[in-house]
Amino acid sequence: MKKNLLDLLAAKEGYVSGEDISQELGVSRTAVWKQVRSLRELGYDIDAQPRQGYRLRLRPDRLLPAEIARGLNTGWMGREVVYLEETDSTNEVAKKLAREGAREGTIVVAEHQSRGKGRQGRQWESPPYSGVYFTVILRPSFAPRYAPRATLMAAVAVARGIKRSTGLEVRIKWPNDILLNEGKVVGILTEMSSDMDSIHHLVIGIGININHEIQIPSRYRYPATSLQSELKSPVSRLEVLQRCLEELEKCYDEWVKDGFANLLDEWRAMSHTLGRWVKVNFDEAAVEGTAEDVEEDGSLLLRQKDGSIFRVVAGEVLFPKTAK
Amino acid sequence: MKKNLLDLLAAKEGYVSGEDISQELGVSRTAVWKQVRSLRELGYDIDAQPRQGYRLRLRPDRLLPAEIARGLNTGWMGREVVYLEETDSTNEVAKKLAREGAREGTIVVAEHQSRGKGRQGRQWESPPYSGVYFTVILRPSFAPRYAPRATLMAAVAVARGIKRSTGLEVRIKWPNDILLNEGKVVGILTEMSSDMDSIHHLVIGIGININHEIQIPSRYRYPATSLQSELKSPVSRLEVLQRCLEELEKCYDEWVKDGFANLLDEWRAMSHTLGRWVKVNFDEAAVEGTAEDVEEDGSLLLRQKDGSIFRVVAGEVLFPKTAK
Repeated sequence: MKKNLLDLLAAKEGYVSGEDISQELGVSRTAVWKQVRSLRELGYDIDAQPRQGYRLRLRPDRLLPAEIARGLNTGWMGREVVYLEETDSTNEVAKKLAREGAREGTIVVAEHQSRGKGRQGRQWESPPYSGVYFTVILRPSFAPRYAPRATLMAAVAVARGIKRSTGLEVRIKWPNDILLNEGKVVGILTEMSSDMDSIHHLVIGIGININHEIQIPSRYRYPATSLQSELKSPVSRLEVLQRCLEELEKCYDEWVKDGFANLLDEWRAMSHTLGRWVKVNFDEAAVEGTAEDVEEDGSLLLRQKDGSIFRVVAGEVLFPKTAK
Repeated sequence: MKKNLLDLLAAKEGYVSGEDISQELGVSRTAVWKQVRSLRELGYDIDAQPRQGYRLRLRPDRLLPAEIARGLNTGWMGREVVYLEETDSTNEVAKKLAREGAREGTIVVAEHQSRGKGRQGRQWESPPYSGVYFTVILRPSFAPRYAPRATLMAAVAVARGIKRSTGLEVRIKWPNDILLNEGKVVGILTEMSSDMDSIHHLVIGIGININHEIQIPSRYRYPATSLQSELKSPVSRLEVLQRCLEELEKCYDEWVKDGFANLLDEWRAMSHTLGRWVKVNFDEAAVEGTAEDVEEDGSLLLRQKDGSIFRVVAGEVLFPKTAK
């Protein structure tokens, strides 16, 4: 109902009379007034004038389902939206929904995460209304061993989405960070429930720093940045989210239909890591070498000084100042 | 409290007076009587004689926590037991407990599963009080890609446990069935929650056909059998469970400490599959070849007619009558 009233108001530049609305929606004028009030509570600026009626002055800067749906060009991705003002972690909510049977393509969006998660148990800062923090539910039919590709795919899709919505060209730091001018602007955390033959569900959590005014404090090893910091002007969070959802659908459909090779090539082309001398930290050890390639399973191949190849499945990539 | 009364009664061959029990446990005689009654409800046969007191005549054929703990020689495995008369699936219960933070080594045991699960969405028949149906919670620190080893490890441990408790020598059919004279006697289903770097938890569900009187109906592709059917006499379910828990702890500790090579060799030595001409069915296709080896990640290597090696990650192994 709210959506219908919104559509009605949005379709007209000027005022729409309460009488007209009441007739078109088939509800009483009191009901119209109640709907206006609840839209206002969601942040819509609706002007009401005696005898003239109602006029939509401003849409709120909120990632509300009705706002996401408006102008979203997808078939199945993001068509079911669970919207939360605040939550601990959108991945946690999505995992619960997935266990309860949520459809593929369902997304969980939050304006604020109190305990946003990064890789290796780290925190992901999620200040209210500054970024886009969302999780996508997928139910792929491929074997669990291919799950790490989902992270690579998501990085490619988000890179494309950012390019389309802002024009900015990002680089991908293996395996799952997206950088703008060496600053971290996107984090991706893929989680899975599976048995040894098949994946029950995958959730891909994506956090994008959009209108963060300040640099995120330096207690993090890598500086963070935001789309606004790079562009020097605010960015529409909705626009970024919508373009990312569209690209996620395209990438996933392509993967299912044509395999992973093209996506991997695209990942390679946007890689910040390949070709560089890197150091990879494990729990207690470290390995250095030239990042030579990424394999189809997502692992990184390092050419060490002695010419041998070292295969990195998981770890943190650093770029030491002292090359070879 | 129940455990204390049980220990008291079990420590004496003859009768223990209500007065003595009441003093030793520090509870009223009415409380003693109530405890006796609830033990009887659990299936303990406790004789009560005026002036003589209580005597434990028979322990029930139940996998009760107190019974499992008695004579279990483990440090951490099976020290926390969640016992259920009936449940849908012990794996489902264990996954929920694991998400809520249950300790490594916690087990879920049920006398009956209404929806016991096998691989690839199949059912696992779990008639009441006939078998042992349990799930173990593990929190390994290795990467998700090594999870399939857990199934191989569990097969080795259960094979050892069955040998110790019954003397029977089983064979392992890749990847996770245990056979006795070509009949299926154990099924194992490993499930995982993870991100791409680390495993949150693994649950290993193990169903052992023990005192099943009849062969399981032929709607299943492979005949089932039970330990009792092979031995022609009933088997203590508790004894089988306890020895399996002990071997699971040993195998896992060995894996963590010394790596997987020895366990894999033991798996190979007990394999029913290696060296045979097999056919592996996938969703829509099939491959035939000689099962040449199993890799450290649990995949099966088939030598095809043309000499090439085909690597099987998941699928169902059949033994076609017509060799090459």
